Amino acid sequence: MEAGTSGKRVLVVERILSANDRLAEENRRLLDARGILAVNLMASPGAGKTSLIRRTVEALGGRLRLGAIEGDLAGTLDADLLASMGIPAVQINTGGGCHLEAQMVREALERLPLDHLDLVIIENVGNLVCPSEFSLGAQRSVVIASVPEGDDKPYKYPNIYRGIQALVLNKMDLLPYLEFNVDRFRRGVEVLNPGVAFFPLSCKTGEGLDAWLAWLEEALEEVRGRRATA
Amino acid sequence: MEAGTSGKRVLVVERILSANDRLAEENRRLLDARGILAVNLMASPGAGKTSLIRRTVEALGGRLRLGAIEGDLAGTLDADLLASMGIPAVQINTGGGCHLEAQMVREALERLPLDHLDLVIIENVGNLVCPSEFSLGAQRSVVIASVPEGDDKPYKYPNIYRGIQALVLNKMDLLPYLEFNVDRFRRGVEVLNPGVAFFPLSCKTGEGLDAWLAWLEEALEEVRGRRATA
Repeated sequence: MEAGTSGKRVLVVERILSANDRLAEENRRLLDARGILAVNLMASPGAGKTSLIRRTVEALGGRLRLGAIEGDLAGTLDADLLASMGIPAVQINTGGGCHLEAQMVREALERLPLDHLDLVIIENVGNLVCPSEFSLGAQRSVVIASVPEGDDKPYKYPNIYRGIQALVLNKMDLLPYLEFNVDRFRRGVEVLNPGVAFFPLSCKTGEGLDAWLAWLEEALEEVRGRRATA
Repeated sequence: MEAGTSGKRVLVVERILSANDRLAEENRRLLDARGILAVNLMASPGAGKTSLIRRTVEALGGRLRLGAIEGDLAGTLDADLLASMGIPAVQINTGGGCHLEAQMVREALERLPLDHLDLVIIENVGNLVCPSEFSLGAQRSVVIASVPEGDDKPYKYPNIYRGIQALVLNKMDLLPYLEFNVDRFRRGVEVLNPGVAFFPLSCKTGEGLDAWLAWLEEALEEVRGRRATA
């Protein structure tokens, strides 16, 4: 078989992916060993990733110590905001890249005060497609959808809903002003990821946050439980 | 110099890009020769690409004949919807791919009744990052932003705002319910793309559509004027 251009292309992509997977596994071991829960937060631009982090910090009220890794193409807006709230935050600028990779997260983890953290939230680049293909080593992956995006997203962007452990539906306060059928949305997700934890909430009003916080605390307990029995 | 993994990777990406650019140029010549205006519509998932196409068709009231190319990871929801309105529509399923490429558009153009069209709107995959790197051959590129996404997007996703000829800001009807500073948004865009045409509008209420339609008609006249003088 002659090696055509497309054959070469596939080969290179596979090599990058498996290198990423190896690094993701290392990140995971590092986090597990320290009893830190990391969450890979994925969403469309503007779905409310940073707002959810802010709300989570406020609602935790110091009960858990949180750090953040902020992925953006450019700028330090989100990291600045979180730092101003006293949260240790590292900004990763991808310089145009459409997703975070495990190596970037490794470098960011090394810059966080891990000895003083329980929870690290990794805010991926706002993108409903590419981040799903790159493991970061976080023990939990979460998608934030939002009401203004429409209830058809699971049908159009199925890949990102697979392999996550929780789905947040943000901006529930806008439901009265938009045509969004929560049942249709959930049916679309259920086909892709049956039984995934589902948290409709509003970062604006705070409604629905309690269930999300309980889920985070349970996930942290599981990580620590595994460490205890390892 | 030894060729490492990262060197090989860059080489392959460049090869793909230039092949895409050549095909995009061919698409452009095909469109120009027929006096058809094509618009590459880029946006986050759920910003309102399909809604803008529907509204545009309704408002044109048959004045211009419109066809559509719908890019999605999966499904035929958007193409079905447009077809039900009598619009010739071709669905491209990227099968997980995060953007359209010129070759996909070429194949879709061949399936549209070009002899009976004035305008082809290409709805790119919902993604504020990757589509900006791939020319399709459309004479105009447009980004749709939307109020619920937040006014900070130009600062975080700068690349997509460069090299476009128009920016639509959709869901203006939601402005009373959200914190969105239109001036901050525009300042962010102006730095990246000074003087870009700006159309704040609402696909829900129809407010602001007239200026967008006038811009489309002017662009079509320019394409036809160039053909007349060629």
